[in-house]
Amino acid sequence: MRAAGLFYIIVLEDSMYVVILAGGSGTRFWPLSRKLHPKQLMSVFGGKSMLQRTVERVVPLNPKRILVVTNHLQAEETRRQLEYLRGVRVEVIEEPLGRNTAPAICLAATLIAQHDPEAVMAVLPADHYIRDEEAFSATVLRAREAARNGYLVTLGIAPDRPETGYGYIEADTELRGDGPYPVRRFVEKPDRERALEFLSAGNFYWNSGMFLWRADVILDRIAVHMPELAKAFSGIAFSPDIWEPADLAPQVEAVYAMIEGESIDYGVMEKAEDVVVIPAAFGWSDVGSWSALPEVMDQDAAGNVVIGSREAVITDAAGCIAYGGEKLVALVGVSDLIVVDTPDALLVCARERAQEVKKVVEELEKRGLKRYL
Amino acid sequence: MRAAGLFYIIVLEDSMYVVILAGGSGTRFWPLSRKLHPKQLMSVFGGKSMLQRTVERVVPLNPKRILVVTNHLQAEETRRQLEYLRGVRVEVIEEPLGRNTAPAICLAATLIAQHDPEAVMAVLPADHYIRDEEAFSATVLRAREAARNGYLVTLGIAPDRPETGYGYIEADTELRGDGPYPVRRFVEKPDRERALEFLSAGNFYWNSGMFLWRADVILDRIAVHMPELAKAFSGIAFSPDIWEPADLAPQVEAVYAMIEGESIDYGVMEKAEDVVVIPAAFGWSDVGSWSALPEVMDQDAAGNVVIGSREAVITDAAGCIAYGGEKLVALVGVSDLIVVDTPDALLVCARERAQEVKKVVEELEKRGLKRYL
Repeated sequence: MRAAGLFYIIVLEDSMYVVILAGGSGTRFWPLSRKLHPKQLMSVFGGKSMLQRTVERVVPLNPKRILVVTNHLQAEETRRQLEYLRGVRVEVIEEPLGRNTAPAICLAATLIAQHDPEAVMAVLPADHYIRDEEAFSATVLRAREAARNGYLVTLGIAPDRPETGYGYIEADTELRGDGPYPVRRFVEKPDRERALEFLSAGNFYWNSGMFLWRADVILDRIAVHMPELAKAFSGIAFSPDIWEPADLAPQVEAVYAMIEGESIDYGVMEKAEDVVVIPAAFGWSDVGSWSALPEVMDQDAAGNVVIGSREAVITDAAGCIAYGGEKLVALVGVSDLIVVDTPDALLVCARERAQEVKKVVEELEKRGLKRYL
Repeated sequence: MRAAGLFYIIVLEDSMYVVILAGGSGTRFWPLSRKLHPKQLMSVFGGKSMLQRTVERVVPLNPKRILVVTNHLQAEETRRQLEYLRGVRVEVIEEPLGRNTAPAICLAATLIAQHDPEAVMAVLPADHYIRDEEAFSATVLRAREAARNGYLVTLGIAPDRPETGYGYIEADTELRGDGPYPVRRFVEKPDRERALEFLSAGNFYWNSGMFLWRADVILDRIAVHMPELAKAFSGIAFSPDIWEPADLAPQVEAVYAMIEGESIDYGVMEKAEDVVVIPAAFGWSDVGSWSALPEVMDQDAAGNVVIGSREAVITDAAGCIAYGGEKLVALVGVSDLIVVDTPDALLVCARERAQEVKKVVEELEKRGLKRYL
């Protein structure tokens, strides 16, 4: 399943469940990402999709089972992309519609708890970039120890720049050497001045959205801090030996009709006790938009990133991100552009305005041009 | 043959021959233009190609015959594009290879002189834009009168800006009202300062490369000023009733093996006497590169020109020229760009550097990437 020549030989007596959150419907990678083909199902870097990379990344952890939580719209393509993983126990769990992370995590924890209440579950977004997979595995295994002891564990990324696009976690780093550290608070995306403060303070970490905890522990905290969510899920009757989502679908649909969307960060993590952060240094990016790609991909000397194209002619261009599919891409005298070419749509966007790509999607929706969504 | 609703009813007792120079292999419209599909065969404006527009434009002049001179490489596509013109006497004359305008004109004049030595021939580039077709016809008919009297007539475009991309013609405008004016001299592309002088002087015209003369007169001047060219052509034996190029091909090939490339401007016009210019005001552009398109096409309020695409989403973009084929084109926060998308190549170029597109073509040649040429 790995590329030939790379072997992981890790035998773990007490492994865990891995829950991959793959229900995102982000529009910031339009026109490559579409409603039915969002970022996690995209081959952002060429080759395998971000979901496929995420699943492959956790296989060396020898998980008891991998649960990929997605929504109804994307379930078919999600299953198709995972078909090649023979011999890996992957379940695709279908939400009737996206309701942010808390319901998805509650659903997965409820399922896991039916089989193995005290099992540790690692919650991982399907659409993040991780450079150093061995460091990632080592960090997850450290986090598993803390989770097994009843903590809610977050993986915190040591910041290397005053990033204003991520939430931060303030850790109490006074006592312990290299963590896990008790979490003082979660901080929303800061402005630049505060981001600079956090960077120099040394005890702030980026909130990666990667968590580990025992299934029974997170369900208990959901019951305390999100009682309506817990109540909605409490009525589900499981056939204990069956993971198949078909049996669950009508019940899950009824539950989702009752609940509101909420993030696990806001719903639980910011309020709960016994939250700890483990510093992670494995080269991470949430790849939040086209403009994030130069962080995680090879650039030429002038900072250009060309993705997918076999050939490129770059004449006095700098800081450009070009996705040309199979095409030859030629850039002449331009700088800091995002250029994305797909079979039916072509985007050219100033790099500093990558966030506005979603406005294009909104405009297309307004005009009723659904075929481009 | 014209679009329905447009009829020209012009009956001319003494008509002329029209010679359309269609052998250009310009690379400045790459990636839309290719070696086998140069600008004159392109649908730059959507719809018909520039060659087709040029041929249709002269049909109302009721020419005795239209000679389209092209080269061997492009002959097949040229013939294909003219097939739909039933009932119009068009001959495609094939040069074995491009040798600039003087040989092409000499070839056409030699052919015409075999049939009708004193016939006036109008020489027109196949890849120019002309907005006002009625004014064009009227100007050509005025020029025909002067040509019939033995003058070498050029159509001079009254400049409306200090263009540095065109050659200029200085006219002696002191005596006659609206021309034809005697030509004092031809001036190469000027720098901006001189272009400003020419513009304010009032007696300078852009050299459009459109000429009218009698076949016997231009052959005589070629004999005087380009004796080697005249000599090379002198041996051709014609079957007088046959225009078919197949009969000519081996003889023409032998001639072209002997001659050098030269423009008629440099070879004859700059040296000859009895050269006159007729001011032309029919909305003209040689559409020399992508950056010329806004001169000749509809723009939005911010100066953007989108060609071909059915849909465009333009968010805070200005001065951009986008050719997206059938695709949706989205521009966000960018300005003064040329964006050209074709099935196998994508170009993004600063508008002020449109001339450097040919450098891309040179680079592709150097790398041996012939499939993109």
